Amino acid sequence: MIRHAALFALTHTAGSTEEASFLAALSGLSAIPGVGAFEIAREISPKNDYAFAVSMTFANQAAYDAYNSHPVHQDFVARRWLAEVASFMEHDTVALA
Amino acid sequence: MIRHAALFALTHTAGSTEEASFLAALSGLSAIPGVGAFEIAREISPKNDYAFAVSMTFANQAAYDAYNSHPVHQDFVARRWLAEVASFMEHDTVALA
Repeated sequence: MIRHAALFALTHTAGSTEEASFLAALSGLSAIPGVGAFEIAREISPKNDYAFAVSMTFANQAAYDAYNSHPVHQDFVARRWLAEVASFMEHDTVALA
Repeated sequence: MIRHAALFALTHTAGSTEEASFLAALSGLSAIPGVGAFEIAREISPKNDYAFAVSMTFANQAAYDAYNSHPVHQDFVARRWLAEVASFMEHDTVALA
């Protein structure tokens, strides 16, 4: 199982309508086939500069690839992520046995 | 619930005995009271420079604080983490409703 995560900060003011709109659109990605354990979380640590994290799981690389190329994901990246995310770091892991 | 995570890279060669020793010592932190959902994972993405991630959950900030000040954790940080971790980023999150 692959866990895909992205830590990110938005261009929007904290608590703004624009922030809420982005997070609502992001949560729509959970409906893409193959996505499991979808969660959006708020960063509470001062130890990094990201404000949010989104994480999800895929059964295998093929499911992850299908998500990446799914039109709903591609549209979200093009219309929202690239326009509204100020900085991010992706992070893909497989649990050790 | 708070999820505490650290992405990290070691000073050791990948696959080395020293790496295995560090990971075994790290997994011992799961026995500290209050630690839930403890997982060590290997980074598979080329999108960041960390090789591993460790994550765990705490019921609340008091449980997290108790873990931080627990002698087993403090000893691990002093003897192993500070000596063998080349770089890291911590990341503490609370899931959005």
